[in-house]
Amino acid sequence: MGSEHTAKAFDTDLQELTRLVAEMGGIAERMIVESVDALIRRDVPLGQRVVAIDTELDALQKRIEERAVLTIARRQPMAVDLREIVGAMRVATDLERIGDLAKNMGKRVAALETDFHPLKLFRGLEHMTDLVQQQVKSVLDAYAAHDLPAAMAVWKGDEEVDAICTSLFRELLTYMMEDPRNISFCIHLMFCAKNIERIGDHATNIAETVFYMIEGQAITDKRPKGDMTTFANTVPNT
Amino acid sequence: MGSEHTAKAFDTDLQELTRLVAEMGGIAERMIVESVDALIRRDVPLGQRVVAIDTELDALQKRIEERAVLTIARRQPMAVDLREIVGAMRVATDLERIGDLAKNMGKRVAALETDFHPLKLFRGLEHMTDLVQQQVKSVLDAYAAHDLPAAMAVWKGDEEVDAICTSLFRELLTYMMEDPRNISFCIHLMFCAKNIERIGDHATNIAETVFYMIEGQAITDKRPKGDMTTFANTVPNT
Repeated sequence: MGSEHTAKAFDTDLQELTRLVAEMGGIAERMIVESVDALIRRDVPLGQRVVAIDTELDALQKRIEERAVLTIARRQPMAVDLREIVGAMRVATDLERIGDLAKNMGKRVAALETDFHPLKLFRGLEHMTDLVQQQVKSVLDAYAAHDLPAAMAVWKGDEEVDAICTSLFRELLTYMMEDPRNISFCIHLMFCAKNIERIGDHATNIAETVFYMIEGQAITDKRPKGDMTTFANTVPNT
Repeated sequence: MGSEHTAKAFDTDLQELTRLVAEMGGIAERMIVESVDALIRRDVPLGQRVVAIDTELDALQKRIEERAVLTIARRQPMAVDLREIVGAMRVATDLERIGDLAKNMGKRVAALETDFHPLKLFRGLEHMTDLVQQQVKSVLDAYAAHDLPAAMAVWKGDEEVDAICTSLFRELLTYMMEDPRNISFCIHLMFCAKNIERIGDHATNIAETVFYMIEGQAITDKRPKGDMTTFANTVPNT
């Protein structure tokens, strides 16, 4: 970067970008909590509010992309400065996807209005959500503070979420096999559990972005990752 | 853009970007076809190949992002030229997500190795896949040719996919209610059907990117969209 003036202008641009990312993060976190709250409390209007707020998140993502691109064109940043801008764009993309997943859960609230409402299942979903929301919060803090160890802790920490998700799937399968009338309800909960698991995946993506911003390269390690798609093999279906 | 030299350098950069996007498109299209083929033919090694090839797609997306950012910093393009670069990045992001969804189907092949294998269900899945793969192909052609009407045809055309998906879900529900031994198999197929539907959503996203590149603004119309998440309301579960 050439002059001091340019450096200062770049810093202002970057601050605005990180401010917008933080704003997105706040909305996304609230969407996670409220969509699951809506599911548990069968609160259809709350579910609809989550669906409605997703357009705000989409608009913010587009704004971040626009500003990032303008900043790159105007300030021609190099090395670490460029990575800061690219990092903001990547985090915004993950937050937008998190919003989509929460929105999908918000939509399902209306379909879950039945009398069948086993508390135990919702406890599992709630516990998973608490963990995932904590991951999202921690990784966004790590992003804001450029705290690599904190980001790496999130990156390594999604095994517990995967384990709860697998056990929740097993339980849901049992309910479905016991009584066919539970099937459609349980399928919705499975899609919700899968959505929460995917939100956790986006938290680890953000952790990878923090690594890239600080270290200047992509993580080459394989992430420790439970694989839920094989659940059918662990639950005998004959 | 200043000199003729810069304009030419920009064109070369842009050509390289669109070439890389086309390469990603080819891989993503093949992943869609092969993952569903693997499901239908219970071809576990083919499913594993789809999973393996996804890393190529991820690497290409990162390369497109890097090159796009360098092009913006070096050439400082404005207006339509800038939109071309941003468009390439956006299309690459959608193709990367399409790859993730195909990979997820590839992983499920091993879990579907049962004797229960109703051909009718797979016909539905196959039909959906044909439609979606055609949408992906058409929209990538529209992107390459800057053909707005062709892109808009894709944008409007995913209602049929949603309808097939809904009817497939109903059929799967029936199989599950008839015999609990089918449940875990059918759940995997539901997740696969949902993945294919989501691939269709990414095709419409790419159509929106083509619109943005050519028109210089976002589409403001609401997309005509069937909503499968309400399927439980159409299938009595009591």
